[in-house]
Amino acid sequence: MPLPESLTCVSCSAAYREDPNQYSCPKCGELGTLRVSYDYDRIRASASRDSLAAAPFRDHWRYLPLLPLAAGPVEFPLAVGATPLYPVPGLRKALGLERLWIKDDTANPSASLKDRASAVVLLKGLELGRREFAAASTGNAGASLACLSAALGLPCHIFVPESAPRAKVAQLLIFGADVLSIRGSYSEAFSLCVEASEYFLWYNRNTGYNPYTVEGKKTVALEIAEQLGWEPPDTVVAAAGDGCILSGIWKGFVDLHRLGWISRLPRLVAAQAEGSQSIKQAFDGDGAIRPVTEDTLADSISVSLPRNGVMAVQDLKASGGSAVSVSDGEILEAMPLLGKRTGLFAEPAAAAAVAALVKLAGAGELSRAERIVVVSTGHGLKDVDAALQAVDPPAPLDCAIDAVRERIHHS
Amino acid sequence: MPLPESLTCVSCSAAYREDPNQYSCPKCGELGTLRVSYDYDRIRASASRDSLAAAPFRDHWRYLPLLPLAAGPVEFPLAVGATPLYPVPGLRKALGLERLWIKDDTANPSASLKDRASAVVLLKGLELGRREFAAASTGNAGASLACLSAALGLPCHIFVPESAPRAKVAQLLIFGADVLSIRGSYSEAFSLCVEASEYFLWYNRNTGYNPYTVEGKKTVALEIAEQLGWEPPDTVVAAAGDGCILSGIWKGFVDLHRLGWISRLPRLVAAQAEGSQSIKQAFDGDGAIRPVTEDTLADSISVSLPRNGVMAVQDLKASGGSAVSVSDGEILEAMPLLGKRTGLFAEPAAAAAVAALVKLAGAGELSRAERIVVVSTGHGLKDVDAALQAVDPPAPLDCAIDAVRERIHHS
Repeated sequence: MPLPESLTCVSCSAAYREDPNQYSCPKCGELGTLRVSYDYDRIRASASRDSLAAAPFRDHWRYLPLLPLAAGPVEFPLAVGATPLYPVPGLRKALGLERLWIKDDTANPSASLKDRASAVVLLKGLELGRREFAAASTGNAGASLACLSAALGLPCHIFVPESAPRAKVAQLLIFGADVLSIRGSYSEAFSLCVEASEYFLWYNRNTGYNPYTVEGKKTVALEIAEQLGWEPPDTVVAAAGDGCILSGIWKGFVDLHRLGWISRLPRLVAAQAEGSQSIKQAFDGDGAIRPVTEDTLADSISVSLPRNGVMAVQDLKASGGSAVSVSDGEILEAMPLLGKRTGLFAEPAAAAAVAALVKLAGAGELSRAERIVVVSTGHGLKDVDAALQAVDPPAPLDCAIDAVRERIHHS
Repeated sequence: MPLPESLTCVSCSAAYREDPNQYSCPKCGELGTLRVSYDYDRIRASASRDSLAAAPFRDHWRYLPLLPLAAGPVEFPLAVGATPLYPVPGLRKALGLERLWIKDDTANPSASLKDRASAVVLLKGLELGRREFAAASTGNAGASLACLSAALGLPCHIFVPESAPRAKVAQLLIFGADVLSIRGSYSEAFSLCVEASEYFLWYNRNTGYNPYTVEGKKTVALEIAEQLGWEPPDTVVAAAGDGCILSGIWKGFVDLHRLGWISRLPRLVAAQAEGSQSIKQAFDGDGAIRPVTEDTLADSISVSLPRNGVMAVQDLKASGGSAVSVSDGEILEAMPLLGKRTGLFAEPAAAAAVAALVKLAGAGELSRAERIVVVSTGHGLKDVDAALQAVDPPAPLDCAIDAVRERIHHS
């Protein structure tokens, strides 16, 4: 038997019974608002920190006893998770932070953290008897589902608004996804994707809808804790659009805390773009998620109405954390700062987390010895146009050693 | 003491004495034509297949006793090597090849195999007392050196022709490289870079010039052999531009064979673009490397005069291998074939190796049970424009379930 344990509504706490045909609260009717819980005694009986230490750190299936899936072993065709946690000495020095790490989740198969969610959702769907998959996304989630479905030889349907950038659609097509280019907004494509999934019995991976996306994403926190020797960081900084990654990180630490594998919980910092800060406004205000007008180059966190906003705000508050907004200019400064000081290349959304770190450090809101992890959620090669905006082109030089000499001696 | 062992000219076999100021044959004067040899008894005394089995498969420094570097341990800031070797069941089925693997070297820090060479060259340069580095490159080698230098906090100077695409230059700048944009061709930038390196005592990483690039690249072969349980493949297919990766793969297997860790050597297949097939022409003809007019979209293997051509042709012949040329059209077909069947996204140069595989399989030149490894050398996200050429955009669809139904029922 798998471990579905219990699902409860994040808004009204009503209990939900697994119905892969529509993930919505049976009481208040809201879509995708379900929290997953486990029988932690049962997990303790089958896994421990010692049993993990004996297993090679190769992919995130090492945490299978903490995932909503049947017992393994899992043979997955691509290597998801087990990404590096880098101590980044150059960035530590630049920011005056002595215990800073970057969790480089760009090292996943489709170059973003989303693979953690897609992999778990694909296996969950197969367990529930589904053989086709669907998602609405123009970005990392769609690319991730298309990538991992292809590796598993399973068909997937990706709904994108007609206005989606051609380069992003090209990746979906390279992986052989069935791309449905919808005459409408992202929000309309999202709703149509849910409707079509019900009709065709496709298993739906939409962010902020399928509760197992949070369960997949939580493995990044499990890895951070294990990589730090089960001494969790004081602070984890991550970018937030829909807020699903934030809830995933929190869920991972909460699960470990309930198991008694870590003795305390970190505080979370949500980094949002100034042009997409619905979660920050809700967090700083009355907690209610209200739509905003999107205006940021950080496309992966550019969201009008965060689909996972309610849960994310609850999690931020539970962690004693905060929300920080950064301008596009600050994001564009953070990209080369990260590149120069670490050799890591982050897309604008991921760089927003670095920008938030810089802002907090500059405001004296971080202590020198604080243990901080910043999660890099997507690769800079996904958006080279943004990188072009972040740097100045070099002046041309004559092809002569004298020209080089003069240039070097004057720089 | 490090292991320089011996360097000999690939053309005239003259012995060379380590002089990091200019890697050229002391007798025939040719640049970058040096083969590195080791004292294999000494390696056997410090390493074995069993000692490797006891070490975690985490990066390519596990092969330090086979590298031209001082004894470790190495603490390198980014995780180079230890990339996955995927069995790719979907592609096996599509091509009727039962024992096919893809070595996914796009999983390196800068998303190409070149990181193996850059990492070894950087450490070698430090051992030789150098503190600044240089390379001429508009592509993967430059991005790789810029990435890893940044991680190590070392300055590097990258020479690019003024005509280099802005997006490629942007990556170099994100990593904080000193980019010298030269009014001249790539070949002129290459020569100027060698001259400037001599003058400023920069350690030069140019492909086909620094002999330790081949030593770094060979670790991909060491990993393939170890991942296959020291039973080497029958055939290894890799794309060739300058031919340096080809020589690196061959050197890795030759070293293992001399150590007695593998009992036979694979044959190599060089995949070249029709519009850049100098190595194929030399291999099929009299062995002499002659310049060609470059005309291919596969920029990472678009080369007029291969800098490592002589060595590559020798190695191909020694392996009993062959050279295969593929058209840009065949490369553009291989990209979505690989994507759909494996979930891997390769840049055109890497897809050229898949295209060569398809061509050989179609011509009946591969046996069903042959053990084949194809090396994927660079990530598809490095050249999304090429991906756009490889797929057709989807037709737009009305935002209504009826439109989706009709579309699905008719596809």
